[in-house]
Order: sequence, then C-alpha cells, then structure tokens
Amino acid sequence: MQSYGLTIDKFLDHAAKWFHDSAIVGAEAGQVVTRSDYAGLRARSNRMSGALAALGMKEGDRVATLAWNTPHHLELYYAAMGIGLVCHTLNPRLTAAHLAAMIDEAEDRVLAVAADLAPLARELAGMCRSIEHIVVLDALAADGDALGAGRAQVWTYEALLEIHGAETEWGAFDENAPAGLCYTSGTTGSPKGVVYTHRSNYLHTLRALQADAFALTARDVLLLAVPMFHANGWGLPFAAPAAGTQLVLPGRTIDGPSLAHLIRDEGVTIAVGVQTVWLALADHVEATGIALPSLKRVVIGGSTCPDALIKRLEEKLGAEVQTSWGMTELSPVGTIAAPGSADPARGSGRPPMGLDLKLTDADGRTLPEQRGVQGHLKVKGASVLDRYFRAESDALDAEGYFDTGDLATIDAAGNLTIGGRSKDLIKSGGEWINPNEIETIVGTHPAVRHVAVIGRVDAKWGERPVLIVESEGKADARSLLDLLRGKVADWWIPDRVAEIAAMPLAASGKIDKNRLRADYEAGKIPAVAMGR
Amino acid sequence: MQSYGLTIDKFLDHAAKWFHDSAIVGAEAGQVVTRSDYAGLRARSNRMSGALAALGMKEGDRVATLAWNTPHHLELYYAAMGIGLVCHTLNPRLTAAHLAAMIDEAEDRVLAVAADLAPLARELAGMCRSIEHIVVLDALAADGDALGAGRAQVWTYEALLEIHGAETEWGAFDENAPAGLCYTSGTTGSPKGVVYTHRSNYLHTLRALQADAFALTARDVLLLAVPMFHANGWGLPFAAPAAGTQLVLPGRTIDGPSLAHLIRDEGVTIAVGVQTVWLALADHVEATGIALPSLKRVVIGGSTCPDALIKRLEEKLGAEVQTSWGMTELSPVGTIAAPGSADPARGSGRPPMGLDLKLTDADGRTLPEQRGVQGHLKVKGASVLDRYFRAESDALDAEGYFDTGDLATIDAAGNLTIGGRSKDLIKSGGEWINPNEIETIVGTHPAVRHVAVIGRVDAKWGERPVLIVESEGKADARSLLDLLRGKVADWWIPDRVAEIAAMPLAASGKIDKNRLRADYEAGKIPAVAMGR
Repeated sequence: MQSYGLTIDKFLDHAAKWFHDSAIVGAEAGQVVTRSDYAGLRARSNRMSGALAALGMKEGDRVATLAWNTPHHLELYYAAMGIGLVCHTLNPRLTAAHLAAMIDEAEDRVLAVAADLAPLARELAGMCRSIEHIVVLDALAADGDALGAGRAQVWTYEALLEIHGAETEWGAFDENAPAGLCYTSGTTGSPKGVVYTHRSNYLHTLRALQADAFALTARDVLLLAVPMFHANGWGLPFAAPAAGTQLVLPGRTIDGPSLAHLIRDEGVTIAVGVQTVWLALADHVEATGIALPSLKRVVIGGSTCPDALIKRLEEKLGAEVQTSWGMTELSPVGTIAAPGSADPARGSGRPPMGLDLKLTDADGRTLPEQRGVQGHLKVKGASVLDRYFRAESDALDAEGYFDTGDLATIDAAGNLTIGGRSKDLIKSGGEWINPNEIETIVGTHPAVRHVAVIGRVDAKWGERPVLIVESEGKADARSLLDLLRGKVADWWIPDRVAEIAAMPLAASGKIDKNRLRADYEAGKIPAVAMGR
Repeated sequence: MQSYGLTIDKFLDHAAKWFHDSAIVGAEAGQVVTRSDYAGLRARSNRMSGALAALGMKEGDRVATLAWNTPHHLELYYAAMGIGLVCHTLNPRLTAAHLAAMIDEAEDRVLAVAADLAPLARELAGMCRSIEHIVVLDALAADGDALGAGRAQVWTYEALLEIHGAETEWGAFDENAPAGLCYTSGTTGSPKGVVYTHRSNYLHTLRALQADAFALTARDVLLLAVPMFHANGWGLPFAAPAAGTQLVLPGRTIDGPSLAHLIRDEGVTIAVGVQTVWLALADHVEATGIALPSLKRVVIGGSTCPDALIKRLEEKLGAEVQTSWGMTELSPVGTIAAPGSADPARGSGRPPMGLDLKLTDADGRTLPEQRGVQGHLKVKGASVLDRYFRAESDALDAEGYFDTGDLATIDAAGNLTIGGRSKDLIKSGGEWINPNEIETIVGTHPAVRHVAVIGRVDAKWGERPVLIVESEGKADARSLLDLLRGKVADWWIPDRVAEIAAMPLAASGKIDKNRLRADYEAGKIPAVAMGR
C-alpha cells in the first residue's frame, strides 16, 4: 500500500477540491462580517504559509495565536501547520504573566492576536524576548500602523498577506511532526503543554467523524462556539473541512442573542460548545420565542451535564443534546453519546473507535470488573498524550496508558460517567471520600450557585471535608448538610462549612480547587464548625 | 502523542469491550444456523490464533480461505491477522488451475475451506506443494475424518480450535505489516495480487465509517451480501465491529427469498452487495409482497447502476440506494453517494476524506479542468496499492498516483461517474471511441441481455468497433445500430455485429472482454458486416 502521510493540510485540500463553495462565515456579535468558502480559505491559508516563511519561520517553529473563532484564526491554523510550523493557541482569559510563561517556554516567534487584544499582545511583546512579529487579526490593513510593540515588528494580517503572501507547498514533512501546542488549564497544578502531531490530529479527525460521534456531513452547517484555543476547538477546525461541512465562526461574542441569530440566519444544524453557552441560548429562546428550526443537534462538553439540564435544553432548543467527555491531553474527544441514542442514562457516551479506556484502583491495578464500579480512568490511543512539552519523562503507566486524573464509572451499556478528579479525593481515617458526590447533592439546593468540597488537614482523621458554597444567601449551613443525610455515609458529611462571595474560577471556567485549598490553609476562608 | 499501532485486531477488541452482546448471525439458505456476539467471536478468534501458531504458522505466513460469508470465515480473518499472518481470500468461482496458480505464488501453508468446497480443496492440495493443512469450516467436528488430501493434514475448524486453541497476544507487530492478500479478477490481464497492510485496512475502515460514507452505527444491523473474498468484503468485516454494528452473514446463498427472510427476521437496516443481488431481492418482494420495514439503506457497488434501476430498487425495497465505486486496489472504497443525498445525478458519489483523485489525459498529464470532462482516473491514498504482490516495480506515476484503468467524469457537485475501462478504448483513424457509451445505449433495448463492444484490427482505420450481443432473439442488428444514430458520432457506429448465445463472464460477474477479443480474433464469433 502507498506511503501516504497523515498530515492535516490534506483536510483543507479535500474541502477546497470537493466542497469548494461550502460557506465559511465569520461573525461578530451575531452579525455576519465575512463570507468565504473552502476554496477561498484554502487559497488564502496557503498564501499566508508563504508569508510566514518569508518572516523566516522554519519547520518546527512556533506561531502563537491569541484569538477568537474567526476565519483569520482558522486560516492561520492551516497556514502554520501546512508548512510544519506549530500553532500554539493561547487562552486570552489568562493573565499576562501566565501567558508570558507559556510563550517563554514555547519560544514563540510570531504572535497572532485579535485586534481587540492588541494591548495585551503589546504587553506580552515587552515581556517575552522570543516574539519577533505580531500579526493583528480581524483588522483592516491600515489598523496596525499605530501599534508599537518593543522589539517586535507589527503587521496586520491583510498587509502581511498582501506583501509576503505566496503559493507554498504543503505537507512535505513526516506525519509525526508537531502541528499544535496547547497548555492545559492548570486547575490541578501548573499549566503543562500538550503537543499535537499531524498524525494525532488526522486520526482524531477520522475518529470524530464516525456516525456515532460528531457525524458531520456535507449538508450540515456547524456553529463552532467552543474556542479554537481549547484543544483545537475540539478538533472541529479539522473535522469540518474533512467532511465538507459549512462553518459558522461566531467571533468573540457567544451570548444567547448572538448565537440565536446566527443559528436562525445561517441555518445551523449542529452547534458545539460548553453547557453554559447553551443555557444562555435556551434562556434567550424562552424569553423571545425565536424559532431555530434548522438546529438538529447540540454537542456539549467540558463538564458533566445533569439530566434535568439536558431535558431543559432539548425542550427549549428543539434539538438533540449530545453529551461528551474529553480533555486537552486527548485531542480532546474521549467519549460521546451517539446521535439518536436518546438514552436517558447516556452519561458522557462511549469512546468512538480509536481510544482504549480502562479503570484501575488507586495503585494502578486494572479493576477485575470494569462495569458498574468507580475507578481511576486511564486511556490509550493515537491521539493521546505520552509526554508533556519539555517534560523529561513520559506520563504513562507500564502498559502505556495515560492517567486522566478522573474517577469514572462505566454502565452496562458502556456509557461513561465522570465522578470527579482523583486528586480531589479526601482521605479520612484511611477511607476515601469523593467530594464530587457531595457537590452534586448540595448543588441541587436552589439557592446554591457554586459548590466545592475540599480536604483540610485534620490531626485525628488525616483529612476532613470542608463544604464551600457561593449562594444567594438563602441557604443556611444546616439545611445544606441535611440534604446529604441518608444519601452519603455519615462520616462523609463535612464538619466545616464556609460561605464565600465569589468562587474562584480557572480560565477554563472550572472551579479552582488549588486556589481554594491554598486560601483555606492561609485562613482566608473562615469556616463554621458543624456537629454531625 | 502516544505511539499506537493501527492494527486491525483493535477493531474486534473494541467491539468485544463496548458492544460485547451485539449479535453476529450466521445463516444458510435464509435460515439462521448460528447466533453469537462480539465477545464470543473475539474469544474464539483469539483462541484460533493460538491454534494457527500451534500449526507452526509464523508472522508473514499466508493462510488461504476458500469460503462464503460465515462466522467461521470472519473468525479466521481476525485469527490470522491478529498475530500477523496474512489472510489470503480466494474466490471459489475460479477454476482449480487459476486458484492453484495463486496459491503457488502466495505459498499458502494453510487452506481453510467451506465444507461444501472440500472436494475443490482436496484437488488443490494435490496440485500445490505449499499447502500443509486444510481446515474445513462450517462443519461439525467429526465431518472432516473422511477427508484425505495428499500431503496435507485435514482438520475441521472446531476440532482444531478444541485441540490447539489458546489465548494469544494480538497486535504485537508494526502497523505496516501485511494483513491480507486478494487477487484482482483479471478481466484485463492475468490476476495480480494486492497486499493490504494493517495500517491500510485501519485507515480504510475509519474512512468508510464517516457519516457521508457507510455511516454504520451501533444501532444498525448489517447484511453482508458482498463476498468476503472480494476485497475484504468491501472492508465491512472491519467496519462493523469498529462501529459495534450487528452483522448478518448469509452464507453461500444470496438469492432473493433467502435475503428477504434474513432482512425481515433479523431487522436488517443496511444491506451491502452488487446490483444483481438487489434486483433479485426486488423481484422477490414484488412477487410475494413481503414487507421489509427495517431496511433503510442498500449499498451498491461493483458496477455503475443506471438511474432507472436505482429508482426501481428504491420503490420496491422502500430503502435508499447508495451507489459507490471501488476496486480491489483501493481496499476497495473509492467514492460513495452520501446517505440522504437523494441526488438523482449522484453517479457513484464523492470520495470520503482520505483519497485523492485526479483526471489525466492518455499521456498522464493532469487535465486543466477536472469537472465535466472525461479523463483517465488516478488515485492516491493510504489504502491504495503501490506495488502488486511479487511485482518488481511500483504501479504508480511520477506523482505517486495509481492508474485505475478507468475513464471517469466528475460533475460540478463532485460526483464521479465511471465511463468504461481505458484499455477497452478503440482507436479508429487516430481518434478514440469509448465502447462504454455505445454499450449503454444498446443496453436500453428491451431484448438485449448483455452487450459488449470490442475493437477489431482494421487495415484502413487501425481499429474498428464490433458490437456483440446476447439477446432474447428479438433484436435485429439494424434496429440496434439505429438506436445509436444521433447519439454518437457516425464513425463510432460499429460496422460488424455478432449475436452470441452466452456472453463470457469473469469470476467477478463482469463481461470478459479479453476472452471476447481472443475468440473474435480466432474466428469463433462470426459477425455480420453492416454498412453505416
């Protein structure tokens, strides 16, 4: 059989050849601002490769992006990856100090930045010696002129393309070459870089396109409301052109009204994002009565979605909800509920072909029974991390599995349900308490906005759970603990309760338990002692 | 990213873990004879690997099969490939001499044979020195006792499994290791071996599973009516477990009544085979009124299916017809019409992601315009042949493309239509005549059963077309030629016409033009000269 490298430039080549006139729509605040197609996108991306080469970028060099979901950002993905550069997506919601640390470690030479983030880019250019060029996206050619940024040369994207753009050969490198770099959000330690290869992205794409996974077709219109800086936008910037699916890129604004208008006006059939986005959309639909007849499916990922919420979304949006689970280290899809499966106990679905899962005990021994019991979730596959960027050793067990750090159960039908982070487990009197179970129960109280359970050091028991809530003031500590009685073992019930004004959230939107633990130990979170 | 070999044993492992109780049904003459599931199939296949190893089979050794679509045959696929043996599928409809030549070239050490083909296997064992063991499938353990076969030792499958079966590690080899061997049908030359690798089969499977291709899901029940000796049964023995799809294996008999009963009784949702099979099914449905409510899709391949026939099938079967085009050298899927595309001009559909197509002129130069013109079809991809088995050089052009030998057009929407074999083109007065176009027109005559146009040597023009028909006697030569007037250029109209009693067919069911040309040159086909 032919030697044929699995490189991701082939996705855009395929789209440009077979779905040349499928639309790529760029929007801002719910209004369409650009309209192109795969042939146009491919031509521009390919010319931008030439421009990057003209800046002196060489195979393996890193191009950082600090940008929203726009056609310029998508063009840069392919412009960089097509010639073997590494596209390093940065999360604009991190602090300048965090971003600078990542840029320094990655030694990014080019920083492409959304126009509205230009001040941040200027700050970063002052902090990071590696940055030689700043490319301002989503702006007119003239807009960049006013920008000064220390040592770095500043271009607008369009000016750079006009001056240095040139047709360039794509894909002339090994399929194991790096293609992307993305740092984990760091809720459980300092951020770590995950390097994607062309092969891993290519195989992830084919995995994701299966009829029981994303199931994209050439007749679909996909709204990408998950940021392209989160694990390659869940791989959809690759999957959409591979399937010839039309793309709607909503820009920075992904509030309910903006997305509702885009879905209605562009005939979106599949929408992908985190649950808070879809809740806001459902609220807007409810408040305004706007009809979204084209919408068939909403894919949710990023956190476990309670059944009641799924029902509410399906009712309000008139579309099927597909739950999923993944992580940056998995490229990112782990499991997904099949379209049309309509299983009320779907959990986060099953792994589409190409990923092996196993559950182990705390010592890494494979559990003899893999169904109906909770265990530590380990994964293996062609799109799964082996070693973090710049790390000195692999993050794998003896059998080559990566430890997700998650606790999970798998039901008889094979559906996965995540049951919290293993690092958050609390060891009390030699036995484990799972804070996730306590949080889920307390979270049902109508006045509770956010809930977290952390472990505190205890002289007698080793650790004891502390319940921390952000509420609307109507939840007294006693009534919260009463919710737990009969549902968890008595000794699981927290004996300290704290009310805080605002729960600390990480850039990913998840609760930052590291911060909570540090603040608690420093005495910054006063807790009330409660008898059981 | 992890090093993770793309080996096909992973498909059955996946099915056994996530779809352990999905049914595998074996049938004969429309009656179910065995009922198992993926967990059972995996366990037996894996133990059969141990048995093959016990016979002394080593990585890279060939196991030949001469068998129908049965669970035993499927078990052998995985038993062989799982430990790096090469599964060489033989077509039982070839002559013993042809089969012996293939076995000799492949040096097959084990020959697995359907019980009803045991006499043929005995004959082959006498002819081929490489065969050490004959394994009789689909028979009771005791059935084999009576079989003597020269030097070769004879086992029944069940006895071999019982005596030597043992759990065995799968997949401990490189993804580029050979997995399968299949000879082309040889209508355009002597049969040539195509070697599939694990990587090529794995990637073909993910390609085929896309929502715009076979789109198999875990809720589907697949009837595999394409022989497993034709290019891996179009890859479906890999795709079905990868997607967790239930499988119905119909055995030797694939007539209308047998398939109708299986589809009805087993709730088949997707049925795959050549068009003659579905025509027979439609006839049976029409004659008996049997209802097949579960059937959603019928996938057709192997030859171009006229629109009128597609309409008739869709009406009678109440299912969507998916046309496709492929070849042994392509593993085999090239293009396929997307489910739900309902495009009346769908041709054979588009290539799902993972295959590059181009059209060239007769000299191999890429046509400047790829749409709306006929050209020579070339293909590139990870599941496309580079070199025939035992050949001394690659079968690729300078850009790494394989010449399909087909003429094709691609319409504005990207749909491919095959327009005959380039080798069948006739050069008359320095210009090309495409016999396929003439055949298509003459084939519309109601009395014509088979039609072929071949070139004869002509002193003046170089070559001239000869029209050969097998008819029901009501088609006189003049009326056939009259059909062509105004539809093709005058000089395309054949000036010799022959009527023959039975058109020679190759083992694949296609008209054997090599034979026709040889017989014509030998004077065995008397033709009538006709003035234009």
